[in-house]
Amino acid sequence: MVLRDGHFLKIRGKGVLVIDKGPDYRNRLKGLRREIVRKGVDGLLVTDINNIRYLTGFTGSSGYVVVTRNKALLFTDTRYTVQAKLETAPSGFTVRIYKQKPLEVLAARVGGFNLRRLGFEGDVLSYNLYKKIKSALKPLRFSPITNPVAGVRAVKDPFEVDLIKKSSAILKSGFKKVERTLKAGLTEAGVALCAEEWMRKKGAEGVAFETIVASGQRGALPHGKASEKRIKKGELVVVDMGARFEGYNSDNTRTYCIGKANGLQEKIYGVVKEAQKRAIALITDGVAAVDVDGAARSHIKKAGYGKYFGHGTGHGVGLDVHERPSIGPASKDVFKEGMVVTVEPGIYIPGWGGVRIEDMALVKKDGCELMTASPDELVCL
Amino acid sequence: MVLRDGHFLKIRGKGVLVIDKGPDYRNRLKGLRREIVRKGVDGLLVTDINNIRYLTGFTGSSGYVVVTRNKALLFTDTRYTVQAKLETAPSGFTVRIYKQKPLEVLAARVGGFNLRRLGFEGDVLSYNLYKKIKSALKPLRFSPITNPVAGVRAVKDPFEVDLIKKSSAILKSGFKKVERTLKAGLTEAGVALCAEEWMRKKGAEGVAFETIVASGQRGALPHGKASEKRIKKGELVVVDMGARFEGYNSDNTRTYCIGKANGLQEKIYGVVKEAQKRAIALITDGVAAVDVDGAARSHIKKAGYGKYFGHGTGHGVGLDVHERPSIGPASKDVFKEGMVVTVEPGIYIPGWGGVRIEDMALVKKDGCELMTASPDELVCL
Repeated sequence: MVLRDGHFLKIRGKGVLVIDKGPDYRNRLKGLRREIVRKGVDGLLVTDINNIRYLTGFTGSSGYVVVTRNKALLFTDTRYTVQAKLETAPSGFTVRIYKQKPLEVLAARVGGFNLRRLGFEGDVLSYNLYKKIKSALKPLRFSPITNPVAGVRAVKDPFEVDLIKKSSAILKSGFKKVERTLKAGLTEAGVALCAEEWMRKKGAEGVAFETIVASGQRGALPHGKASEKRIKKGELVVVDMGARFEGYNSDNTRTYCIGKANGLQEKIYGVVKEAQKRAIALITDGVAAVDVDGAARSHIKKAGYGKYFGHGTGHGVGLDVHERPSIGPASKDVFKEGMVVTVEPGIYIPGWGGVRIEDMALVKKDGCELMTASPDELVCL
Repeated sequence: MVLRDGHFLKIRGKGVLVIDKGPDYRNRLKGLRREIVRKGVDGLLVTDINNIRYLTGFTGSSGYVVVTRNKALLFTDTRYTVQAKLETAPSGFTVRIYKQKPLEVLAARVGGFNLRRLGFEGDVLSYNLYKKIKSALKPLRFSPITNPVAGVRAVKDPFEVDLIKKSSAILKSGFKKVERTLKAGLTEAGVALCAEEWMRKKGAEGVAFETIVASGQRGALPHGKASEKRIKKGELVVVDMGARFEGYNSDNTRTYCIGKANGLQEKIYGVVKEAQKRAIALITDGVAAVDVDGAARSHIKKAGYGKYFGHGTGHGVGLDVHERPSIGPASKDVFKEGMVVTVEPGIYIPGWGGVRIEDMALVKKDGCELMTASPDELVCL
């Protein structure tokens, strides 16, 4: 519910959450317009639904956004006539409703803007829809641009940071529930269900992604979603899950041991934890993401497990679970104040199992603030 | 777990489900190859993840499938080395694993097939990926084809029908839970959460789509997802939800009255129910979907509510919640034995509310079999 321009009161579940400052739509649009100038186009067509939500505030399931150097429009269908106008009031987007023929309405309106070249999200728009739009908007020319909104979205405004923190707090409570529940004899899927229900009761809209509970040898699968396998004494259990709150995701991983851990289990946990600490220690405004990845990777390599760490060290989190920046060996991203990222090194040994530890950090001018903190020692349940 | 070629034993939750016959992969591939011949291409590149699952049995999150007149290959990444081989054993697809450069592996393999023209899913493949694939596979030519697998998937094999029935049974149990729970004072979101948790406990992997609970005036929004609005005495409540089981979806809608219904509420429920009955009565192999839509639509129109029924009468359901056939005024689909469809007329009056009734039917040689049956009279809780 909008209280007054740019100020929000949201009530969810049993709690009351007051957010003083609304989304900084003006700054988001400014960022996108910088991108428009940089790419040498006269405007951008945006069809990715999370990009639309980010720019306009509209939470419906489909629509088109056109942003030019001096115009900002949202096109959507009759299902959303009321909703679109309410939700876009703070962002100031002009709303145009279509009944059946979206491209005709788009063409009629955008055709009058005298644009020469419109950019579009080359990674999002399907080949067929691109062809249809191009034909409907003739003689306007089109240029594919790879995720033009991603760079803007990577830096979160205070409104977004608040929501990600709330999402993280729900997730933290979910892991506490896992720690109270997890024991030998349960199935992986049973543990996942229990944690997911708990997070829903704590206010989550849903999960950020399919919960991973990978026990014993299955821990060697970096994406071993919860199965009907029963958890056994002595096994490590990798639990990777996330909550979604008001559209914003959280994403953490914990690795537990069922019963007393052996020396190798403790050792590998220690290597991964130290790798994570070294990565986190480097995160600050201005640092290259590739160096943060390198800090984790070189530690794991030095310990002799280099070939068992196949994925990147982390990624941005927001309206999407995976967004910019990317923290990997090939990343060209540079950290900026306000980015929110995961840090999640892991070691996966086929036939033995795996350890992954993942927390989320907010990049600051000087260092970073951890939204969650995994334990230094392997937790034995 | 694969017991022997084409025979499956699946154990989920507390129950044991034995499915005698596995998916009919041979017939699926035959259907796709007919499409290849019909479209005049030498093969098809498939990237839609549910189409890949349908053709190959592979349940991973990404990959490429290439089917030619005599070859059938799945390309996926190192995360799925073991899983892809196990899951594709019954379908007989050749698996090729890539580590980092999928398009190089694709080109190296497909380049040797001496094809001239490959079809691709024009509605699925992004513009950028199309360009990259085209460049990597030069001088192979490409033709966009609109959902080449949809026609094959529209007719379900017995294996699929079993899973959809199981999904429907879980959903039915979810609606019983709603009936025991729903009362004045609860929030729409609270009712949705309660039903969703119940279905998960009954074996659902998740929901088929975001649960709709739209009470009072909100019932006039055909897609009014559950909100924090409290349900009041005297209101109609439209509940539209679905379960997912082993990848297969179900989708039903019930409309309830909280307390005693008034004459108009009962009357409109009766009109919608009669419209649904008329549509169902027509469904059989060989009938045009547009006629089934017409049967429901003309009844609602005759009753004076024509302008309050804006959407189609139904759609196919399977691995996707919305798939072929489409049952609407512009549909060109013809019913075939083995199709599974929803029948869901509705009346939505702005400022008053709405009624929608939705069941699922399996098309038979002679008539159809209802998987669920909504009550003839408005249920007052």
